[in-house]
Amino acid sequence: MAELSPLAPSSFPIMPVINGLSFGTAATAMKYQGRDDLMLMLADEGSVFAGCFTTSKTASAPVHLSRHGIASGAARAVITNAGNANAFTGMRGEQAIMAYRDIFASALNIAPEGLLIASTGVIGEVLEADFILKMKDKILNQLGHSSWKEAAEAIRTTDTFAKGATTKVSVSGQTVTINGIAKGSGMIAPDMATMLAYIGTDAAISQNCLQTLLARASDKSFNAITVDSDTSTSDSVYLVATGHADITQITDPDSSEAAAFFDGLIAVMTDLAQQIVRDGEGAQKFVTIHVTGAKDAAEAKKIGLAVGNSPLVKTAIAGEDANWGRIVMAVGKSGAEADRDKLQIKIGGYLVAENGAAVEAFDERPIALHMQGPEVDIGIDIGLGSGTATIWTCDLTHGYITINGDYRS
Amino acid sequence: MAELSPLAPSSFPIMPVINGLSFGTAATAMKYQGRDDLMLMLADEGSVFAGCFTTSKTASAPVHLSRHGIASGAARAVITNAGNANAFTGMRGEQAIMAYRDIFASALNIAPEGLLIASTGVIGEVLEADFILKMKDKILNQLGHSSWKEAAEAIRTTDTFAKGATTKVSVSGQTVTINGIAKGSGMIAPDMATMLAYIGTDAAISQNCLQTLLARASDKSFNAITVDSDTSTSDSVYLVATGHADITQITDPDSSEAAAFFDGLIAVMTDLAQQIVRDGEGAQKFVTIHVTGAKDAAEAKKIGLAVGNSPLVKTAIAGEDANWGRIVMAVGKSGAEADRDKLQIKIGGYLVAENGAAVEAFDERPIALHMQGPEVDIGIDIGLGSGTATIWTCDLTHGYITINGDYRS
Repeated sequence: MAELSPLAPSSFPIMPVINGLSFGTAATAMKYQGRDDLMLMLADEGSVFAGCFTTSKTASAPVHLSRHGIASGAARAVITNAGNANAFTGMRGEQAIMAYRDIFASALNIAPEGLLIASTGVIGEVLEADFILKMKDKILNQLGHSSWKEAAEAIRTTDTFAKGATTKVSVSGQTVTINGIAKGSGMIAPDMATMLAYIGTDAAISQNCLQTLLARASDKSFNAITVDSDTSTSDSVYLVATGHADITQITDPDSSEAAAFFDGLIAVMTDLAQQIVRDGEGAQKFVTIHVTGAKDAAEAKKIGLAVGNSPLVKTAIAGEDANWGRIVMAVGKSGAEADRDKLQIKIGGYLVAENGAAVEAFDERPIALHMQGPEVDIGIDIGLGSGTATIWTCDLTHGYITINGDYRS
Repeated sequence: MAELSPLAPSSFPIMPVINGLSFGTAATAMKYQGRDDLMLMLADEGSVFAGCFTTSKTASAPVHLSRHGIASGAARAVITNAGNANAFTGMRGEQAIMAYRDIFASALNIAPEGLLIASTGVIGEVLEADFILKMKDKILNQLGHSSWKEAAEAIRTTDTFAKGATTKVSVSGQTVTINGIAKGSGMIAPDMATMLAYIGTDAAISQNCLQTLLARASDKSFNAITVDSDTSTSDSVYLVATGHADITQITDPDSSEAAAFFDGLIAVMTDLAQQIVRDGEGAQKFVTIHVTGAKDAAEAKKIGLAVGNSPLVKTAIAGEDANWGRIVMAVGKSGAEADRDKLQIKIGGYLVAENGAAVEAFDERPIALHMQGPEVDIGIDIGLGSGTATIWTCDLTHGYITINGDYRS
């Protein structure tokens, strides 16, 4: 069992109930022994689902089915297993899903395409449906009795801690609750795939509006983190709105009601995304890269990701070296517009380079102290426009190589 | 001093003289002690230069000046120093170059812009021109007396071995010689920047034609290797044709004479590029990724580079694990067109996956043996078109982290 990440939060948050949303968990023993590894999330009739999925061209069968299920408008539940991603398993992988999906959907009294599928774990091994099928009665009896925390525990693979976040926002004078859980510790761990997230709210929101808000929030949260630049074949984010809160249904993503909800949504999703980085394989430092002055927001993000994915920047941070030369190099290779002589770089808030060169005779001591801490802040001003972006990543350490390269020995 | 890479070639090749091209080397003691670190390459009047440079938006002052020098048509010589890249040094860096360029050009009796500049080493420290200036008489006296091998030794930074390659080809019945030397061991080593290459030939070729052939050959050699996906601010490849061979000047890059010359050029450049990968920081395995069946050549290269840059693929190779699931993941994230169910993956020539799933019951033993060797071959057929590409890379090991992250301790 992996040691708890040194960057883990102190505890799992206390999560309020979301009316209209229930969980059940069970232990299949498919791969893990002595722990739950199957999680069912069911939403009341009238709930609305949105989803964002991996951009991988080799996405897994569960991703294809979930995309279809959300598009159908019939989505009511998600069943998730940990230990086998059922990815790149061809026709047999899809047959395995068909062997349990319709039976569970029927037992839940929902349409077959209304049961979404998520699987995380080994790639390339066909899932044995029997492990899931034999837990049907148990997990159905458990529905409504499992907590958000138990659901978060059941979906873990190489995660060293369960991830949850919660917030309340006021929409039209009424309180709306937003909860979320997630798993993920590298973009792909040793044979363990996937970032998965489940967000639930009692807000009343139309499906189109919910999907728009989820896509916008994903762009600034789960799509703004990077552990190792690798993209899983199974990444999925689900957002369900049960509509139990006493508000008029939000239908316009640009309304003030949507903006109020979005504030809470982005807070929960950013919290979860940052927890995934804090659980990055071998991570010893949590790194925030704040890019300003780029030509536009897309260019700012491109620069932030180039810096956050650079092995040379990430190893320098592991070595506690304020190596701004490597940051300049990464800005240069990003492909975004940049002018060497307009760049300004700060580390821990201290200016280290501007106007195309190092700041003359700066005091290295406070910067060295900052680099020795567990949280490293890099500020990059491009000096060309008003585009900004924030990216979160972690350092690249011997621990990453050990987890991903030495696991056979 | 770093240990010799386990993937190093057995010896430096015997390099014939290229008529019309001479070298001088000297020791400035700017950074390294007890070794030459300054190299001057001079070509006879009538010689023609071509160059390919980093695509970095934060390219160094030497790169800007060399680009300009080649475009001017006046290029006759390159002066190179190892130990300080003079990159991201702003106005003071350019002033440092101006303090020695014109003096050397005048002593060589060539136009100032005819002296190209290359610098490799620490980023962000202003070069002290005095170190170079004081060696003027010594290096001019040495001109014509230094060998290709001595020139290759003088430009080393973190390289664990000097890199050279040579070949002869027949053009219109006459023998043409092509020699090359290079340095580079990571895209950027700890504070040591840069891949540099110098290729010389006695062929007679017009400048436009030479530039076209160099760009085509770079695309399939130096631009087809990756150690850590990072791009230096100083990468430069110089190609000089002295015209001393007894052939009619080649002016059409699509002529049969140009094709004959190109065969030799690509052989020398591929050899040098592969030596840089073999000297990759911490490299224990040399990896060839051969992509076929992509939509076109550009898509094939995109896929090959995504696989070659994937930390998860590279750590799996370090761990001697035939982890084809990670290869599928990297193909999927490349952005190139791919169909999960048409992919075919071979490792060491053995088929491991096809039609969207693992080959059933394949014999793992010969594949495990292949993974244990120092040369790993990955074959990826996309099954969509006729685009092919070959990419060379190395594994990602604890040695890379030590070199790039632990150097302060």
